[in-house]
Amino acid sequence: MFREKIKVFDCTIRDGGLINKHDFSDHLVREVYKALSAAGVDYMEIGYKNDKKLFSPKEFGKWKFCDDEDIKKIIDGIPSKTKISCMVDVDRVDVNDIAQKKDSPVDMIRVASYVKDIDKAIYLVNNFADKGYETTVNIMAISRALDNELTEALEQLEKECKAQVIYIVDSFGALYQETTEYLVKKFKGILKSKEIGMHAHNNQQLAFANTIEAIIHDANFMDATVYGLGRGAGNCPLELLIGFLKNPKFDIRPILELISKEFVPLRGKIEWGYIIPYAITGMLDEHPKSAIALRESHKKEDYREFYESLIGEELD
Amino acid sequence: MFREKIKVFDCTIRDGGLINKHDFSDHLVREVYKALSAAGVDYMEIGYKNDKKLFSPKEFGKWKFCDDEDIKKIIDGIPSKTKISCMVDVDRVDVNDIAQKKDSPVDMIRVASYVKDIDKAIYLVNNFADKGYETTVNIMAISRALDNELTEALEQLEKECKAQVIYIVDSFGALYQETTEYLVKKFKGILKSKEIGMHAHNNQQLAFANTIEAIIHDANFMDATVYGLGRGAGNCPLELLIGFLKNPKFDIRPILELISKEFVPLRGKIEWGYIIPYAITGMLDEHPKSAIALRESHKKEDYREFYESLIGEELD
Repeated sequence: MFREKIKVFDCTIRDGGLINKHDFSDHLVREVYKALSAAGVDYMEIGYKNDKKLFSPKEFGKWKFCDDEDIKKIIDGIPSKTKISCMVDVDRVDVNDIAQKKDSPVDMIRVASYVKDIDKAIYLVNNFADKGYETTVNIMAISRALDNELTEALEQLEKECKAQVIYIVDSFGALYQETTEYLVKKFKGILKSKEIGMHAHNNQQLAFANTIEAIIHDANFMDATVYGLGRGAGNCPLELLIGFLKNPKFDIRPILELISKEFVPLRGKIEWGYIIPYAITGMLDEHPKSAIALRESHKKEDYREFYESLIGEELD
Repeated sequence: MFREKIKVFDCTIRDGGLINKHDFSDHLVREVYKALSAAGVDYMEIGYKNDKKLFSPKEFGKWKFCDDEDIKKIIDGIPSKTKISCMVDVDRVDVNDIAQKKDSPVDMIRVASYVKDIDKAIYLVNNFADKGYETTVNIMAISRALDNELTEALEQLEKECKAQVIYIVDSFGALYQETTEYLVKKFKGILKSKEIGMHAHNNQQLAFANTIEAIIHDANFMDATVYGLGRGAGNCPLELLIGFLKNPKFDIRPILELISKEFVPLRGKIEWGYIIPYAITGMLDEHPKSAIALRESHKKEDYREFYESLIGEELD
């Protein structure tokens, strides 16, 4: 699938940070940046710009805050065309913490939002866009969005928001290809002036498949992570996405080397990937938090009981 | 996706046997049969009926041969509607070893064949059908089949072969959804009197996605294995397929319990799943044998070198 406009967006350190409180070593983050740069990946998202009044730097690693100075140290001296992105969550960022683009190593800011918070997301994006950043809105928990509310949010984004890209975020790993197709077509139908992005989770081993499906229907911003690293089941594996895209600007080899040297050892230390409790929350279109709690308990392998506890919850 | 005609076909012990020389304990095989029966799975494939003149029972476990007496011991006393299947490979079976259906616990015999061996496959299938078995032909290495030769083989199968089902077998885990769609439509266009089956491998995490794709385009026999067990990267995970199908006759819970009790421990002993060298052979549309050899060597984690060795092989 060769299409010049397709951008590969790596969020290994950002989404992976949700597993370990954003506490990756500078060595690892630099190795990821080096490999992505050598591979020709378009963007690297390094973490969140959270308000330190809300979260303590004593409790979280530096990539929960992404100070510009910390980013500069990581990228210093590495030849690269890869752009740097940070994510912000609605209600968790102080816009005064965000410098003008001309004074920052950050190229893009992505705003993660639920459908219900779209007004707040538009306010943030327009603030960042006016400061000179590339911007996106990432609509989380899309598998739970009501169709009429989503329509209204997309219409508002098209009219009022300066973001270049609007993302479909399958937070629960619940989408099958048919719904992905439906959503991409719906987004494209309303967002005439914007690109569509896809951020998939791998609970049901469909992150890569849904990413391909989105590409087929003309989404152009594709999120992926090295070796699929990410919260719970993880994300679309970057190495598979690069293997699929036929654009000669990409080189898979630095990514393969990075996996051998850094990510195989990392998997011995933190858990992500195809693990049954995450598959179950995906099937049931649930947030993975119950599965995360299970994996931290002594009942981590009691899958049947976990499934029965979820389907046995009080009906609304 | 509810469609009455869809049959779920488990091949855990048969495909998994390719990892451990078919040497599963009777305990495990009985537990699998019990769980599949309780889950409402339509078929269980237990192994191969190989000619003992070609392979030594000293070197391989009993499921490389599937003597009817051994099967009877496994299923004895377990209430079940799950049918039993055995696979045979072209040139590796002595048809005289296959009893009449009325004297055997086996319900179905599946013949695995390359396109080039289709005449031999038809001969075998018709012999088994005449003995009273349900039969299929499973066309292996489909990603390497030349389109005109495949057309001819399918036309022959439609005219001359008594098999009820013809399978697409993605031996190398190389198919993307678009090619799966193409193949299912092609098969259906020629095989007017037969059902279509899908047997996917998971090298690129697309086994489940390609199975869904085949279902969407009207294939009705879907292969899967518990926890994705199978050679190399493994197969479409049965638990995901059952989670996707909305037919109330299936119950996922016995499968979840089986995974907890038997397959999580098994994974500590034998290797399968998403492992980069298998992803690489999938991307390159290669047989996984080079990846299997790598994983048994001291270079098992040297992914970049492995990739470069494959793309550096002499061009034809």
